Amino acid sequence: MAVAAEHRTGVHDEISPLRRVIVHGPGPELERLTPDSREGLLFDEVLWLDRARAQHRQFSDLLRGEGVEVLELTRLLTDLLEDPALRQELLTRALDPGVLGDIAVQDLHEALADLAPGPLVDVLIGGITVGELGALGVRPRSIALHRAGEEQLVLDPLPNHMFTRDPSAWIGDVVSASPMRHPARRRESLHLEMIYRHHPRFAGASGPRRIVGRDGAGAATVEGGDVMMLSPRVVAVGMSERTSTVGVERLAADLLADGSVERVVAIALPHRRSMMHLDTVTTLVDEESMLRFGALEPLETFEIERPGDRLVSRARPAAEMDQVLARGLGVPALRVLTPPLDAYAAAREQWDDGCNVLALAPGKVVAYERAAATNEYLRAQGVEVLEFNGDELGRGRGGPRCMSCPVARG
Amino acid sequence: MAVAAEHRTGVHDEISPLRRVIVHGPGPELERLTPDSREGLLFDEVLWLDRARAQHRQFSDLLRGEGVEVLELTRLLTDLLEDPALRQELLTRALDPGVLGDIAVQDLHEALADLAPGPLVDVLIGGITVGELGALGVRPRSIALHRAGEEQLVLDPLPNHMFTRDPSAWIGDVVSASPMRHPARRRESLHLEMIYRHHPRFAGASGPRRIVGRDGAGAATVEGGDVMMLSPRVVAVGMSERTSTVGVERLAADLLADGSVERVVAIALPHRRSMMHLDTVTTLVDEESMLRFGALEPLETFEIERPGDRLVSRARPAAEMDQVLARGLGVPALRVLTPPLDAYAAAREQWDDGCNVLALAPGKVVAYERAAATNEYLRAQGVEVLEFNGDELGRGRGGPRCMSCPVARG
Amino acid sequence: MAVAAEHRTGVHDEISPLRRVIVHGPGPELERLTPDSREGLLFDEVLWLDRARAQHRQFSDLLRGEGVEVLELTRLLTDLLEDPALRQELLTRALDPGVLGDIAVQDLHEALADLAPGPLVDVLIGGITVGELGALGVRPRSIALHRAGEEQLVLDPLPNHMFTRDPSAWIGDVVSASPMRHPARRRESLHLEMIYRHHPRFAGASGPRRIVGRDGAGAATVEGGDVMMLSPRVVAVGMSERTSTVGVERLAADLLADGSVERVVAIALPHRRSMMHLDTVTTLVDEESMLRFGALEPLETFEIERPGDRLVSRARPAAEMDQVLARGLGVPALRVLTPPLDAYAAAREQWDDGCNVLALAPGKVVAYERAAATNEYLRAQGVEVLEFNGDELGRGRGGPRCMSCPVARG
Amino acid sequence: MAVAAEHRTGVHDEISPLRRVIVHGPGPELERLTPDSREGLLFDEVLWLDRARAQHRQFSDLLRGEGVEVLELTRLLTDLLEDPALRQELLTRALDPGVLGDIAVQDLHEALADLAPGPLVDVLIGGITVGELGALGVRPRSIALHRAGEEQLVLDPLPNHMFTRDPSAWIGDVVSASPMRHPARRRESLHLEMIYRHHPRFAGASGPRRIVGRDGAGAATVEGGDVMMLSPRVVAVGMSERTSTVGVERLAADLLADGSVERVVAIALPHRRSMMHLDTVTTLVDEESMLRFGALEPLETFEIERPGDRLVSRARPAAEMDQVLARGLGVPALRVLTPPLDAYAAAREQWDDGCNVLALAPGKVVAYERAAATNEYLRAQGVEVLEFNGDELGRGRGGPRCMSCPVARG
Repeated sequence: MAVAAEHRTGVHDEISPLRRVIVHGPGPELERLTPDSREGLLFDEVLWLDRARAQHRQFSDLLRGEGVEVLELTRLLTDLLEDPALRQELLTRALDPGVLGDIAVQDLHEALADLAPGPLVDVLIGGITVGELGALGVRPRSIALHRAGEEQLVLDPLPNHMFTRDPSAWIGDVVSASPMRHPARRRESLHLEMIYRHHPRFAGASGPRRIVGRDGAGAATVEGGDVMMLSPRVVAVGMSERTSTVGVERLAADLLADGSVERVVAIALPHRRSMMHLDTVTTLVDEESMLRFGALEPLETFEIERPGDRLVSRARPAAEMDQVLARGLGVPALRVLTPPLDAYAAAREQWDDGCNVLALAPGKVVAYERAAATNEYLRAQGVEVLEFNGDELGRGRGGPRCMSCPVARG
Repeated sequence: MAVAAEHRTGVHDEISPLRRVIVHGPGPELERLTPDSREGLLFDEVLWLDRARAQHRQFSDLLRGEGVEVLELTRLLTDLLEDPALRQELLTRALDPGVLGDIAVQDLHEALADLAPGPLVDVLIGGITVGELGALGVRPRSIALHRAGEEQLVLDPLPNHMFTRDPSAWIGDVVSASPMRHPARRRESLHLEMIYRHHPRFAGASGPRRIVGRDGAGAATVEGGDVMMLSPRVVAVGMSERTSTVGVERLAADLLADGSVERVVAIALPHRRSMMHLDTVTTLVDEESMLRFGALEPLETFEIERPGDRLVSRARPAAEMDQVLARGLGVPALRVLTPPLDAYAAAREQWDDGCNVLALAPGKVVAYERAAATNEYLRAQGVEVLEFNGDELGRGRGGPRCMSCPVARG
Repeated sequence: MAVAAEHRTGVHDEISPLRRVIVHGPGPELERLTPDSREGLLFDEVLWLDRARAQHRQFSDLLRGEGVEVLELTRLLTDLLEDPALRQELLTRALDPGVLGDIAVQDLHEALADLAPGPLVDVLIGGITVGELGALGVRPRSIALHRAGEEQLVLDPLPNHMFTRDPSAWIGDVVSASPMRHPARRRESLHLEMIYRHHPRFAGASGPRRIVGRDGAGAATVEGGDVMMLSPRVVAVGMSERTSTVGVERLAADLLADGSVERVVAIALPHRRSMMHLDTVTTLVDEESMLRFGALEPLETFEIERPGDRLVSRARPAAEMDQVLARGLGVPALRVLTPPLDAYAAAREQWDDGCNVLALAPGKVVAYERAAATNEYLRAQGVEVLEFNGDELGRGRGGPRCMSCPVARG
Repeated sequence: MAVAAEHRTGVHDEISPLRRVIVHGPGPELERLTPDSREGLLFDEVLWLDRARAQHRQFSDLLRGEGVEVLELTRLLTDLLEDPALRQELLTRALDPGVLGDIAVQDLHEALADLAPGPLVDVLIGGITVGELGALGVRPRSIALHRAGEEQLVLDPLPNHMFTRDPSAWIGDVVSASPMRHPARRRESLHLEMIYRHHPRFAGASGPRRIVGRDGAGAATVEGGDVMMLSPRVVAVGMSERTSTVGVERLAADLLADGSVERVVAIALPHRRSMMHLDTVTTLVDEESMLRFGALEPLETFEIERPGDRLVSRARPAAEMDQVLARGLGVPALRVLTPPLDAYAAAREQWDDGCNVLALAPGKVVAYERAAATNEYLRAQGVEVLEFNGDELGRGRGGPRCMSCPVARG
């Protein structure tokens, strides 16, 4: 059966007109982010929630105003929980005795049994404390909670969920359910995987043809911010602080086995928080142009293919990085856009997500207002830049691309 | 010779009318703060400089509007550098071969020899790079700079200088030139010490009677944010992440030796970044009332005195903390003001300097607007709260008290 | 079918006559332990291999001289590898693409295809380098090995394998295949599990009735050094640097579900390297007596049972530790044996495994000669102590109990 | 006045006949080394004291047997303490209120006032606990000791004192009193400095002409293990984990100012524990031959001189390392001796101080027996190697050179 274009799903490049996207406006999970917990939760700074929420609404409104269909993660999850069987499956997988202990899981199931879908989504994303469990009539009795006060968390919040780019990634019509690097984010992938598998919005031809990826046990990790569709047959993946070499090989093995792509280009990023994912240092703005952080050294790349039944990885010296990327993009030469800033200004603007723009269409991107010099430069190069003030959102180390999960482009 | 009240200098308590204060509006030193350098420079986050500057101006204007004389650190230092001998002394002490190496010091002296006072202050506070030295005609040749690029710093910036509370502290008419905990802040104390010793504004009866404190070599550290004048004869000092037990004993020995105070009350804070200094968890708002972070456990205290010629320290159990403080304040009982917040909200508002208010007079304080719940609570308790939006300043982990060095109260 | 006593397998307490034990004399894996790799491989110190080997031979000879059947791990593994199907299974599980990457695994399978069982065991335990792979005709091509020199390891060695206590633990006739805390030890458990499942020596009634335990993904970890059979129905498990609270709950859920034991006693150890496992601070020497490190504070314990179909954990205050243990042992009162040493001598002797004795029978233990004061004290208490010099072995932080895996007692 | 050759003091190269040396046999300070304190005290491992003592006696006997005069540090210090004024000076400097706090210092002076020289040396090197102070009639009352048990240390031990190479270094007839990297070793330098200044054995022409070096405040550190006399006019200094770039510049400025040497060769070592000092990776065995760790990459060097009144540092690329050293030695070419070991064996033997030999005369060295392959190789190259078993001493990461402070050669 033919699928009408407007229902076609999938992401075959980085810059075709953005049609549909999953986002998550920051919610109660951020109220649980404190000075002491922020490091474990991967934040440098505590956010001013009211300001962050207002800024995220501006972001969503801007996307809608440009004709993009904006799916709210919270809405999608709530829908799922209306179905008793899905509710059971999601709870069973989210409440993992290997993380929480058997006794806490036993208690959580009991306490959450009668919760309506809406409040249950708040728990799944925002976490729940001993005191809140008590209000649901359950006194948790696991060893770890033996001395816990009322404020102690039984289930951790997911404050990074607003960066919907990371827990999954569409590679053509395949979804990689990300095996996340840090335990603090692993439940995010489960949410996305459940939505793709079971939500009516992703049923049949609207959903992914295949879901790959694993539960992130151990060393094989991949996060969506490192995944970049160069062209329908070539995907680039950053090997970063978050995505491991082993994770890239696993993903490549999966994608190449059935020809989902022809080539995986692995890019060896420095492992630094400031370059957490590939899209924190570079993003595509049109068919042949990459915005790129000026202090980024040329990087070694690896072209992985599967001629016959063996994986083969070919190392390319750093000096050939741009050719490798151009080959992946299918253009004669790459056009690199780097704002002319001194090293300090460049590092500061990159940190504040100046390089993390989201393409709405070739030559048209969304960017943070704070990255003034970068945006001015892009305009001078002929790129249309739609700005909004997201400085509070950026405290979580993510810009417009990080906060969006495109599910349909083109 | 009698000194007219309006020229009297000194800080004999925490809440008498604030008459004169040293501040430092953030300057070029913050442009050197990058994602990679921020940890060493003690910042969690990179600041948006324009926004920070505007917010600091609001702070200074607010103080002036309340009749406080606001001395700008940059102005005071520039004045000093007009005098060739002082310029020589300051440079010799600021350019320490034990920190920078003999060769770099040799090069810096040569390069800075002809710089006018204004630009020289910019270097002393903002640091200088290899490229900037080159522009002054000097190619640095120390071993450490052998491979340095143009952007490499030869002299580090002092981005914490806006927290003028810390590098010195007035204890009555004595000044403690702070032996700072971290190398990144040691040159700040030198600046304050030079100003107190040599600036005409602090000459004679307008200056400190005595300066104590040492260069912060090793374990004996004290920072001004931990120093709190309970009453003219009693000073409290937090033993914190920044101020050491040994540092408090050294300070007590100095102050008690000539009767500058009668008693030092040492307070054993948890050593956590979120409670960096005593004034991050508690500040005085009137003669008997302390605003205090709700999650602060009662703390052990030590009353140090010097009967005869021996120092004696008496440990007081945590349960007696409030009595010890009341005794120091000279009031029958302490009134503790703690906003009724849950643990998460309290921790977040404390992190954003909700407890770090600056008393302008008994019952009248300056606070950040972001600490909405705390401010509302204080008002309900009868405290007058003057607000301004300082959320960008607070990224450096400091509030109104941290950003002010009172030199005259009462 | 009745099983003759001499063939009965299983460990139902800590002190019944030791009949059969698995050990592993240090081999080539220790030649791969270097100053730079030792931390990741969990060693404080590099061992003098010749000395360590000679000392381990003394240990095995001592056991044999006491009538204990000593099974050598290397021998057992070699036997397994004679069977092509088992060889295939073991290789497939040991060479995990989630750890090594798909390309390295592809290369390793190719290189090891024709290796005889003996050399293959050397590889599985001792690891293999790029150069050694090259000698087998394979040039590894994974991304991670792209720049590797000849000496770079492709498969890591298992230098901790000589501590056969940890990767598995017999709890009655059930075996816990340990989900190990550190990646450096995870392949050890696989070796033991394969032996128990498939080696003829453990076939039928000679083998475990059931194998529990998981692959050590994430937070749920249990190591054998923390497992102590108090009596046939009660097992104690230390919650330590290595065994997690969640791991204990998982193990308890498994064991209690089918009544393998009646009660699990979880013991909250401090998380310190010097108290890595429960058996580093205490071991049983007869039916009612525990040798115990003098500086060990009383510890909180938890008694986990499963009345009906719910797990219940009851916290016991630290002061009741000895009663909880006595109840587990089934004796009226525990006799605690603590050598009368000052804090420094005690800490040093505990570090050198003075508390880690192996009971051969009630009142008869094997100990390191270096723990002279402890051994003398035990003798004065009527315990028979068989000594051997194992100071080089102790550098790996383990004593006689750590180096033995009893598979049959009583 | 002419000084007879046998009384001449000073070290003008690394290999002339060794005539006089200071050593320190491990004493009670090592009984204070525990699993928990070892890291702060810079040890990887706890030593078996009886074994270490016996091995050190073998070392001293071996030196004496070769005609070297062996001065025992403990003896020299005891002599000093016989003189009341020196005793007062040493105590005042050793008991630093900036490290210990004013109150603890007050208490220590009181407690130690009547101690005889011998026991006082034991305290200065071995440290003292609260309980031991109590036995001397003093109950310490500093804040830090408020809750201390009997076993708590008031003054820390100096377990590294057996490595007498480090706290001072003779550079011709000048002594560098080392500004040590770690607080755990700073009092060692004081002991040596006091001996050189005041002990009759070093009076007049037997003592150093000048003592340079500072108290190790901050970044400018130099340790003796990094100092190597290439020839009477050229000293090499490793820039290592312990000796800083700034420290080398400071030392060079001091030495070059009065022509004590003509050139300082700074060598950029990797900063790794396994290469703690220059002499852990290379030592001279005769006029032109260096034993060198095989895995040591060629290193960048810097030749510092002082033509006119400016320090000048010239960087030499790593490839020229051996020429720079040959120029320093005054020989046409350097002969590098590297045992032919694989990378693992080489790293292990280097860790066990295989490269840290002590030259007794050109071509004649003392080495640890454990470094069997290195020693065999040296002999094959014509070097005479005197061995002793020092494996327990080596646990402290030091070999024969580290354990000796030559004060006269040639």
